[in-house]
Amino acid sequence: MARNTQVAADHNAPPVTRILAEYVANHPSRGWSDAVDHEAHRTFLNWLGCAVGAAKHEAVEAALAAVQVLQPAAQATVLGRSEKVDIASAALLNGISSHTFDFDDTHLKTIIHPAGPVASALLALAEHTGASGREVIDALVLGIDVACRLGNTVYPEHYDRGWHITGTTGMFGAAAGCARLLRLNADQTAMALGIAASQPIGLREQFGTMTKPFHPGAAARAGLMAALMAKHGYTASPKAIEAPRGWAQVVSTKYAWNEVTDQLGERFEISFNSYKPFACGIVIHPSIDACVQLRERGVLPEQVERIELRVHSLVLELTGKKEPADGLQAKFSVYHGCAAGLVFGRAAEEEFADEIVSRPDVVALRRKVVATVDDSIDEASADVTAILVDGRKEHIFVEHAIGSMQKPMSDTDLERKFHGLSDGVLGAARTAALLSACWKLGEAANVAELAAAARQ
Amino acid sequence: MARNTQVAADHNAPPVTRILAEYVANHPSRGWSDAVDHEAHRTFLNWLGCAVGAAKHEAVEAALAAVQVLQPAAQATVLGRSEKVDIASAALLNGISSHTFDFDDTHLKTIIHPAGPVASALLALAEHTGASGREVIDALVLGIDVACRLGNTVYPEHYDRGWHITGTTGMFGAAAGCARLLRLNADQTAMALGIAASQPIGLREQFGTMTKPFHPGAAARAGLMAALMAKHGYTASPKAIEAPRGWAQVVSTKYAWNEVTDQLGERFEISFNSYKPFACGIVIHPSIDACVQLRERGVLPEQVERIELRVHSLVLELTGKKEPADGLQAKFSVYHGCAAGLVFGRAAEEEFADEIVSRPDVVALRRKVVATVDDSIDEASADVTAILVDGRKEHIFVEHAIGSMQKPMSDTDLERKFHGLSDGVLGAARTAALLSACWKLGEAANVAELAAAARQ
Repeated sequence: MARNTQVAADHNAPPVTRILAEYVANHPSRGWSDAVDHEAHRTFLNWLGCAVGAAKHEAVEAALAAVQVLQPAAQATVLGRSEKVDIASAALLNGISSHTFDFDDTHLKTIIHPAGPVASALLALAEHTGASGREVIDALVLGIDVACRLGNTVYPEHYDRGWHITGTTGMFGAAAGCARLLRLNADQTAMALGIAASQPIGLREQFGTMTKPFHPGAAARAGLMAALMAKHGYTASPKAIEAPRGWAQVVSTKYAWNEVTDQLGERFEISFNSYKPFACGIVIHPSIDACVQLRERGVLPEQVERIELRVHSLVLELTGKKEPADGLQAKFSVYHGCAAGLVFGRAAEEEFADEIVSRPDVVALRRKVVATVDDSIDEASADVTAILVDGRKEHIFVEHAIGSMQKPMSDTDLERKFHGLSDGVLGAARTAALLSACWKLGEAANVAELAAAARQ
Repeated sequence: MARNTQVAADHNAPPVTRILAEYVANHPSRGWSDAVDHEAHRTFLNWLGCAVGAAKHEAVEAALAAVQVLQPAAQATVLGRSEKVDIASAALLNGISSHTFDFDDTHLKTIIHPAGPVASALLALAEHTGASGREVIDALVLGIDVACRLGNTVYPEHYDRGWHITGTTGMFGAAAGCARLLRLNADQTAMALGIAASQPIGLREQFGTMTKPFHPGAAARAGLMAALMAKHGYTASPKAIEAPRGWAQVVSTKYAWNEVTDQLGERFEISFNSYKPFACGIVIHPSIDACVQLRERGVLPEQVERIELRVHSLVLELTGKKEPADGLQAKFSVYHGCAAGLVFGRAAEEEFADEIVSRPDVVALRRKVVATVDDSIDEASADVTAILVDGRKEHIFVEHAIGSMQKPMSDTDLERKFHGLSDGVLGAARTAALLSACWKLGEAANVAELAAAARQ
């Protein structure tokens, strides 16, 4: 899996985001000539005339019909809360919350987190339409297949270029799943995929901010709305994915079309989905797993002189934050991950709380972690040596971390993780009932009941 | 302005959009193994737990606060119609309708249509908040400045790669304008720009479909929501535009940062905005103008043996459809544009009606147009020679078309165009009142009155 991830880049750009923000916030009202002000009126007037003139065009009719499906309150559940919002906003919010802890699932071939965009769109829509659990499961398998196959098509070049692949393929998965749920025919489904193609969402630069989980949420919303628009007759290019100026060729220089077509309908990408035992970026997991194992061997934090970590360059590129300022940044710090593994023997959401990240013993231990790049080590592996103060060395090589395809979490592991997340929000009894409803989802007559059970 | 627009491309991709659409629409329910179906339940369960667990996270609180501003009914005007919808949907719909006829404005340096994304977001938000006309004009100038300066930064490489630059810079313009209207400070405005940076919208492959006007609409909605989220504390990278994996470097290999900073606050890009006299792509305008001039010289369609057109390669690349099937496709046909100019002496929306595009005399004339690429001719010019059946030749070289910076439409021209668009929707009297309100927008106490005047 090792590969060159270096892309030519300008690291010395001026702070133009800041420059523009100050300009927009602070430039005086009417701080320009009369000619500029008149041009603004001409621009506004001309825009208004064009909009009024096209008000009855079929494109406007189709888009209006789609947004009118969004109704005020009480349309769809915001998971774990008491509020209900319109279905597009529910797709957005649940996509955000499911990825906020960086604790969700991973299609390891592409580092896509497929459920966020796809399931968030599906549950919001299904709750509103009263779809059955079987319809939701079918749409989930197919939607994830579409997103991950398109991810396979452009990965890794697309990701290396700087796109957050979860949101730049997720809108296809959400559109496909919602098209299926709405029972669109193939022509309409092609239009839904086409409308989605224009909306790749997500830059890796956002990692460590709230905009990272925004990506799957916005992709869920975009795909849901694309399917609704297609249902009402909105059109797009029928070659929007593959054309020379379609999605794949615009966002990537690699496009392996066979990844779409090979064994379609026989091999399902959801089979390659994995679930995180640790609440952080997947590339840190082997290192945490190794430190948990060191702890199980009896190594205590206070015995440690130094931890020598050898990992693939991608690990440090993605998660090389040496001094994370808070919990969100700590998710991108292999140093904190190692410290948490050794101190607590786990790295769930609690171990990424701000208080933990700044706790003196944790800070002291993470500063003892010395990471070295070794591209002969797979990015899914880690080589860890603890040098103890008494001179002893403990060495652990983790080829495949817990949660990987080779060492998957069991159903019981998943239930334990679910309780850890949900008990504090819904209580243990309701969490147990919700778990049971999830396992039986394929048989549910109406998925709205499960959604209601996930409301606070 | 002449330049190489060739980008390496695969023109022989399989029809994967269609393949995936048929798969999603037609694959049988539960058409996979029990293991796959169980994995779907594990995927759903794991996703649900993550979402419930993060339900009270500050990211979810901020995003929820933003979407709760959307109150579906009666919030903002859909221009030229009787319906009102939530402000995000109004931004989307008015962005779509304003670009549907391809008749709006053009920042000629970048081929950005700046009002669609920016004004659509601003009017929807301002109508809801009760902002003054002065605030809207200020936000319009600044928002367009941000979008077009960022366009200058990456144009032409970004556009040549296949992005529809109106929607891939428009979300910045909408975010900046709405941030200004919401009186966000510089820190919050930087976050709004940062959230917007993850959402470039639009592929040139969509030209000729409803998804082209979707791009400015979706950019308007994305920018509006980005500003609302920033107002409620949602975070993004403060270097989202300029970082090595920020917007500019991900979507382009050209990033001329000085285009952002040079004369910022002194030179305003709205000064370089232009308005279309013809309801189609700007690159056809010189050819239409030439044919209108031929008609004014007395050349009649039935006298024409052949029309020899020499234009820059970009003209045929963008608008080379020889046999447009309907009005929408005809907007991308320089052949139809020439025929309309010569037959009608104009090319407003009516001349792109489906009936006109298929009228035998128009079809016959467009088939007599022979276009030749000549990259020594600027893309803003056209060289047209009519060869008449009697052997005479009439030659016209249009250096700058009507509507260009060098030959701008007058205020009276703009009013005539506005009446042509609006009279059939709102009636001539209300249209005249609306025009008057537009010219006085800078003095309006509450822009909601103007919005109401644009409702059917």
